[in-house]
Amino acid sequence: MEADRPLDTLNKARGSRVIVELKTGKQLLGKLKAFDIHINTVLDEAEERVNGETTRKLGTIFIRGDTIILISPENG
Amino acid sequence: MEADRPLDTLNKARGSRVIVELKTGKQLLGKLKAFDIHINTVLDEAEERVNGETTRKLGTIFIRGDTIILISPENG
Amino acid sequence: MEADRPLDTLNKARGSRVIVELKTGKQLLGKLKAFDIHINTVLDEAEERVNGETTRKLGTIFIRGDTIILISPENG
Amino acid sequence: MEADRPLDTLNKARGSRVIVELKTGKQLLGKLKAFDIHINTVLDEAEERVNGETTRKLGTIFIRGDTIILISPENG
Amino acid sequence: MEADRPLDTLNKARGSRVIVELKTGKQLLGKLKAFDIHINTVLDEAEERVNGETTRKLGTIFIRGDTIILISPENG
Amino acid sequence: MEADRPLDTLNKARGSRVIVELKTGKQLLGKLKAFDIHINTVLDEAEERVNGETTRKLGTIFIRGDTIILISPENG
Amino acid sequence: MEADRPLDTLNKARGSRVIVELKTGKQLLGKLKAFDIHINTVLDEAEERVNGETTRKLGTIFIRGDTIILISPENG
Repeated sequence: MEADRPLDTLNKARGSRVIVELKTGKQLLGKLKAFDIHINTVLDEAEERVNGETTRKLGTIFIRGDTIILISPENG
Repeated sequence: MEADRPLDTLNKARGSRVIVELKTGKQLLGKLKAFDIHINTVLDEAEERVNGETTRKLGTIFIRGDTIILISPENG
Repeated sequence: MEADRPLDTLNKARGSRVIVELKTGKQLLGKLKAFDIHINTVLDEAEERVNGETTRKLGTIFIRGDTIILISPENG
Repeated sequence: MEADRPLDTLNKARGSRVIVELKTGKQLLGKLKAFDIHINTVLDEAEERVNGETTRKLGTIFIRGDTIILISPENG
Repeated sequence: MEADRPLDTLNKARGSRVIVELKTGKQLLGKLKAFDIHINTVLDEAEERVNGETTRKLGTIFIRGDTIILISPENG
Repeated sequence: MEADRPLDTLNKARGSRVIVELKTGKQLLGKLKAFDIHINTVLDEAEERVNGETTRKLGTIFIRGDTIILISPENG
Repeated sequence: MEADRPLDTLNKARGSRVIVELKTGKQLLGKLKAFDIHINTVLDEAEERVNGETTRKLGTIFIRGDTIILISPENG
């Protein structure tokens, strides 16, 4: 049996809604469309949330991987 | 079917207006002219926006990728 | 006899509960599911703890390695 | 048709005056003499500007690329 | 005669107690079990010390190398 | 005609006095003895200057490149 | 004649006392025992100095290179 790799978890979340936490303290929610080994990530139907409140609708966004703390599938 | 890659999203936005958010808290708006794998990015007809207000007209600008948090197509 | 390598310690902790301390000062607890050489880490049944109090249930989370200070098996 | 690359924009600005914004908040103005893939940059006839005021004449300067936020041709 | 290399010093300290100082200002003490070229480090019987006071018993811990300032063998 | 490269400018300054500005806000002045592609730099007859005042005579110093903002030949 | 390289300066200082300045603002003094291309550095008979006062005797220490601002031979 082969050991799990972290990107497998992201791969299973493709097309599902995820929460992305940034080093700036903000949260971005959206449908995980794409990611790469740098954890550069694209969300569709994204919105920004600060302290649990939706602050902005952003549509599709490209997030540079090095600003990401964690990615959590909403139904994970 | 091949999985989407994050740079595909940027590629589709070439020539369209995008919002670039920087680690400094500023926003840069402009027409996406070019980017590379480091997310070094060139905008045409760029302007700087702070708290939703246009603060400077910048023309063409080269942005070093490591200062970028996210890139969002205006009509994405 | 071959010298131990740091990732061997993480490997032995797979499937067990670990505490992950982040550069932001937060702690994440959960079952270690996966990690890679960048220390990108996946926890199952994760929860966030601030000052010893559970502040959020997070389910499965992907943590970007460069935000991690240390990983400690709960029974290590 | 080949896609534009960000360094093409810098290349076209060689010999022209550019504004370089640093992560420290300062601006450096000068004639773009040279740059490389790390965005290490050399300006001739450089001057430092803080809040729009020229604060120092610096002559030729070598700027380490990782301190640069953006480079903007004055007539771009 | 071949010049010493920094990792030789860590290698000689394997199995002995060391003090690890982190960029966060904390100290971790424990028996040096393993390290790699990134200075990812594993301590056994680790404890956290703040201002000279033991604040937590941590057992075995994996420390990500980029958070480390220095490693000092207790009897070095 | 071949384009200038940034390190050519440093190379021409070898043996001459330069000002090195650090991310800490300090300035180091001295005779440029050596540098490499990481911009690790050696100055001879170096002195530290804070707010235009010489604060310390340092002799020969090795400066790690990633702490450098810019290098300016005194007669550049 | 071959140009000097920065590590040559460190190499000549092997076995001599050096001052190492850290990004944390502290100084470490000791006999330079070893270094590598990342500027990971080992000092023997090291002591910590804050504002010119010896605050701790540290014996042999391994310093991670990326925390170092500069290294200065005491008789350089």
